[in-house]
Amino acid sequence: MLHAFAAPTFFMLRLQPTFPCSNKPTCSRGKGNSNSAHATMVHGKEDIEVAAKKMPYQHLNMESARNIDGVYDSFGGKLSHDGRVLKQNFAIRSYELGPDGKASLGSLMKRLQETSVQHCKSVGIFSSGFGSTPEMDKRGLVWVTRKLQIDVENYPTWDDVIQIDTWTCASGDNGWFRDWVFRDYRTGGNSDSSKWSLCVMNIQTRRSFQFLPEIRDEMECLLKVTDPVIDITKINCEQLDVNTKNHVRTGLSPAWTDLDVNRHVKNVKYLDWVLESIPLSVLKNHQVSSIVLEFRKECRMDDMLQSLSSAARTLGQSTSNEEIEFDHLLRLEDGSAILRGKSVVEAEVS
Amino acid sequence: MLHAFAAPTFFMLRLQPTFPCSNKPTCSRGKGNSNSAHATMVHGKEDIEVAAKKMPYQHLNMESARNIDGVYDSFGGKLSHDGRVLKQNFAIRSYELGPDGKASLGSLMKRLQETSVQHCKSVGIFSSGFGSTPEMDKRGLVWVTRKLQIDVENYPTWDDVIQIDTWTCASGDNGWFRDWVFRDYRTGGNSDSSKWSLCVMNIQTRRSFQFLPEIRDEMECLLKVTDPVIDITKINCEQLDVNTKNHVRTGLSPAWTDLDVNRHVKNVKYLDWVLESIPLSVLKNHQVSSIVLEFRKECRMDDMLQSLSSAARTLGQSTSNEEIEFDHLLRLEDGSAILRGKSVVEAEVS
Repeated sequence: MLHAFAAPTFFMLRLQPTFPCSNKPTCSRGKGNSNSAHATMVHGKEDIEVAAKKMPYQHLNMESARNIDGVYDSFGGKLSHDGRVLKQNFAIRSYELGPDGKASLGSLMKRLQETSVQHCKSVGIFSSGFGSTPEMDKRGLVWVTRKLQIDVENYPTWDDVIQIDTWTCASGDNGWFRDWVFRDYRTGGNSDSSKWSLCVMNIQTRRSFQFLPEIRDEMECLLKVTDPVIDITKINCEQLDVNTKNHVRTGLSPAWTDLDVNRHVKNVKYLDWVLESIPLSVLKNHQVSSIVLEFRKECRMDDMLQSLSSAARTLGQSTSNEEIEFDHLLRLEDGSAILRGKSVVEAEVS
Repeated sequence: MLHAFAAPTFFMLRLQPTFPCSNKPTCSRGKGNSNSAHATMVHGKEDIEVAAKKMPYQHLNMESARNIDGVYDSFGGKLSHDGRVLKQNFAIRSYELGPDGKASLGSLMKRLQETSVQHCKSVGIFSSGFGSTPEMDKRGLVWVTRKLQIDVENYPTWDDVIQIDTWTCASGDNGWFRDWVFRDYRTGGNSDSSKWSLCVMNIQTRRSFQFLPEIRDEMECLLKVTDPVIDITKINCEQLDVNTKNHVRTGLSPAWTDLDVNRHVKNVKYLDWVLESIPLSVLKNHQVSSIVLEFRKECRMDDMLQSLSSAARTLGQSTSNEEIEFDHLLRLEDGSAILRGKSVVEAEVS
């Protein structure tokens, strides 16, 4: 099925929800139980040295050379775990708030993208196309999103600073995941999480592409070997029954400003389109606590799209704990699917 | 005419293009020539002390109390000129780039908004509604944009850090301006600039509102008294002749995620709509070097809009220096104007 994907440009890998924070380290070098869902295994120092020899582009700049009186460095993040994890802080800005006064889901999603690129740059394998390595760049290859899941328990608000920890690992012959955990920087509070699955696509032919050993070797310095705590490839979005659909938003079309540097529609635009099919009456007093998007096909500048959603299940009876599950379908007017998705919205605590 | 405005939420004041940088100070305390277009006059220390006594909410926190190991502080900006100027740095993120690989105009515009709010917060008069002071908040008042102009010579790209300097001053009985200069933080290079004109609106009635002395006093700590080097109130957008319009984009409508915390359509959404009427063939190899937007009326969630533009004038013959001026009109389907605008686009140097 991988060859069917040609979705918006993005980067890598899968989330391990029990990511080690400074208080509760769960990640230990060269140790791990591959049968335990919560066990992790990271490369030992020897592995890193071997990998480093293979990689002419790698510069593990643990102390960033980009520091300009501390300010610039704080914008670029910090490597840890031998360069396999990037930690980056972001302030929530006024323009990112939605009508509920909280950061929008889209604004959080954008930050995940940025940390992926910063991670590649920090370890010295950044080339062009935002996430493409030099070996990928030679071949005109870019990352595309195959699937993503974002779970948010607490949305930050203006002037909050969030810390994002991110790492990456390979999956099968053709896939990569990127995992993120984000938390309140000041309190180190409860973390939210995101998992992202990607494959490589040739930008000229817009077709997915098998991984070459040269690219695998080049990315070795990023790789954090972990068992899949949650295997995103096994999460499938239900097929929405278009005949019983509850909500539909038609006449959607990308603008020039919705395109990224690879001239693909930005990921966050797809998210916005999906959210537009949730009824306003629900959006006004609910927030998205979880969303999964599964990309099937890329849309082009002059395509006209429809966003459909169907309330699949309602959990809870009172306003305070009401949860609604939605199935989503974004499709071209001819009926072909751009993406399938599912989301859970829950009543906001006022 | 002020009472006709009820546009998106925003903040304050006018730009003085010759803003003092560290190399060329043009701003001096208690000194100024009100007849000279380039002279500036700033309150002396005595004025500040008098003003401070009037303001129970004011805390001139020149050394921010928000500092958490340097990171958080760098996100919040720094006051200078007795608190009348805020300097704030921002990194350009991957998600802010357009298809030309440069930061979009919208992403720069958003940063201007953020510095306004940070300025109010830094001097201790931040309340709610993002820019509303406590006295405004008591009365249910918010800032609305009346007019704005942004001039950009050089668009930054990914990982660039821009420094924005911003200050504010009053204009007439009912208006305020906010001025910004943004420049490359690393090189201190050529600065671009923006001017923003605002008035106060009652959020319940959605009507503009006369300034009360209590609000004026409260804002005194922010005020930088300068002559209007460029008086934005005198810049008028041409009336676009809808019969000879060249380009039109119909079926535009705000989504829930386009609303800000005051439930107004975000400023940047208006900008996006305006840009959507510029032909794709032009957008593909030109960049906006200047834009003026003049807000007439607010649009609501269920409004359907049209964005019209007309190429008013073309300057230059060769591709390398070609400049095109556009007149813009954003209107409801019943024909009533939401905003008028004009822009200059110039051929991008490849």
